[in-house]
Amino acid sequence: MSKFSGKRLSSLVAYTPGEQPKDKKYIKLNTNESPFSPSKKAKKEAALAAKRLELYPDPECRELHARLAECCGLDASEVLVTNGSDEILNFAFMAFCDDETPAVFPDITYGFYPVFADVNGIKYEEIPLLPDFTIRASDYFGKKATIFIANPNAPTGIALPLSDIEEILKNNPDNVVVIDEAYVDFGGESAISLIPKYKNLLVTQTFSKSRSMAGARLGFGAGDRELIADLNTIKYSTNPYNINRMTMAAGLGVLSDEEYTKKNCKTVCEVREFTEKELSKLGFETTESVTNFIFARHNSAGGKMLYEELRRRGILVRHFDKPRLSEYLRITVGARRDMEALIKTISDILKEMNV
Amino acid sequence: MSKFSGKRLSSLVAYTPGEQPKDKKYIKLNTNESPFSPSKKAKKEAALAAKRLELYPDPECRELHARLAECCGLDASEVLVTNGSDEILNFAFMAFCDDETPAVFPDITYGFYPVFADVNGIKYEEIPLLPDFTIRASDYFGKKATIFIANPNAPTGIALPLSDIEEILKNNPDNVVVIDEAYVDFGGESAISLIPKYKNLLVTQTFSKSRSMAGARLGFGAGDRELIADLNTIKYSTNPYNINRMTMAAGLGVLSDEEYTKKNCKTVCEVREFTEKELSKLGFETTESVTNFIFARHNSAGGKMLYEELRRRGILVRHFDKPRLSEYLRITVGARRDMEALIKTISDILKEMNV
Repeated sequence: MSKFSGKRLSSLVAYTPGEQPKDKKYIKLNTNESPFSPSKKAKKEAALAAKRLELYPDPECRELHARLAECCGLDASEVLVTNGSDEILNFAFMAFCDDETPAVFPDITYGFYPVFADVNGIKYEEIPLLPDFTIRASDYFGKKATIFIANPNAPTGIALPLSDIEEILKNNPDNVVVIDEAYVDFGGESAISLIPKYKNLLVTQTFSKSRSMAGARLGFGAGDRELIADLNTIKYSTNPYNINRMTMAAGLGVLSDEEYTKKNCKTVCEVREFTEKELSKLGFETTESVTNFIFARHNSAGGKMLYEELRRRGILVRHFDKPRLSEYLRITVGARRDMEALIKTISDILKEMNV
Repeated sequence: MSKFSGKRLSSLVAYTPGEQPKDKKYIKLNTNESPFSPSKKAKKEAALAAKRLELYPDPECRELHARLAECCGLDASEVLVTNGSDEILNFAFMAFCDDETPAVFPDITYGFYPVFADVNGIKYEEIPLLPDFTIRASDYFGKKATIFIANPNAPTGIALPLSDIEEILKNNPDNVVVIDEAYVDFGGESAISLIPKYKNLLVTQTFSKSRSMAGARLGFGAGDRELIADLNTIKYSTNPYNINRMTMAAGLGVLSDEEYTKKNCKTVCEVREFTEKELSKLGFETTESVTNFIFARHNSAGGKMLYEELRRRGILVRHFDKPRLSEYLRITVGARRDMEALIKTISDILKEMNV
């Protein structure tokens, strides 16, 4: 920290993204990327847009908002695209939290929530997950706070039923409930269907996972038009041209190819089930994941050892050195051949270690 | 504003970008875009990157930072790319201002500075420009504040000599001085050369204007490595993957084609001089602009009338309905044929109005 920095920085511990080492070629199962190339339509539209970069993008993203709203069964005034879903989450902390309205989220969830709170000077409460890593909905009733729930949750992969989400919405009528659905397309149920009924619901999603567009940075929020108007005020007060022309074009392209997205999600779910079965044979237990990752613990081999051995052998998975999580690995569901390589490598490690 | 919104929104008046109407085809001279297509290398690299969108971009932007640093004569630890230069400016407000350290900037300058201050809850002082729209350096000495100076300034187009910048740096040794050089490549002198001497200097630039990449959203900050580390902490606390793969690739492409950029800047300066002469013949006075826009006032026709008449006839320029500015037009220097159309249209308007 420099001698010039202000108060905001003094207590800040920034978020650590999954590692992206360049020392050798890895099988990357650590950042929940898609094993599939983006839709051909996305690639084609993005390449076309790259030819007109001298002009600013449309700050209102009118065409993309219209098509996205149609896909969601909403009005264009009920959606807002952002530079990845991290940006819409940060906007939500900025717009809906303050000294009187803290944030509330589970103790085990997306690790960025406490960072968003800290950078915006917002107090927060972390509610412990139950011992089986599930959320008890009633823990979130009448909190007088803005609630953030990743559904399905990360890194556990477990989903909360929509009926529980609805109870949380009903029991916080004067506060915003943000449902972060980054992983919803792999077997979860979206709360977007509840938007017409609840003015306090904001749903966020991303194009990074199911739509194979992590490299394009496109996320969005969906909710009542008044909530979206608030988030737009934050956008126009920080970065009105936040979505570049190429990303906007790629987003339009992929939304016109929903069959491709659905097919890929189905394949990911099949490969997830295959991998879970193989891991089980090797002595792992897994949570009930409805995402594109597996959260797994071996019955005797330690999480940190497995992470390090896999890394040494060219396979990256994610390990969290934290209470309750340190024996687990979060493993992205990649291509089938990569998962086969993972199973083979883990099997080798276990044999060598005599576990 | 919704009933859920927090304090931050209650007093916020967002920034208004230049209009982007879609009702008909306009000659766009209102948002300071380049009349030139981006470098072929930028387009080619971006189109290639569009094929690998399933992978996250490198959050550290290592390759781009290395090449950019080389172009600036700096170390990679002394630069940070952002999603347009608006993002690095917002980061600077977040990192270097707080309750004890307000912001200071001219009363007539980039209209986003007060918005950045407001959204971050930072107090600010606006120092009036002199009657000829220039900055008096000594007005900024010993301010005990973070100073923001657009150089050349907007919408006036006038540059402050580097010797004055240096005096401001010397006379604020305990505070950061941000020099916003969005328009520096059209005849200004960059303060990047002062970075090795002044640890309190942050220079910001953009790829939007001279590099024809407004649609890609790429800006950067350059300064002492401790300042850059502070700004990185903000980045990793808000949006670590802020630069998408296509924009990063386009940035690498254009930096390998500096001759093309220089040639385009030279042409813009020539067309600016041509246009200023023609405007002078029609009764306009202009400021001494070293940017890709002209700031002009007619000796009898009103600024608002001219703006509206031009718009009606299919030419967009920018008009600011504010004290001291309302008689002026800010006119982007576009392609020569567009400037000829502008001159012809203004001439017609003046004849019809009998001025």
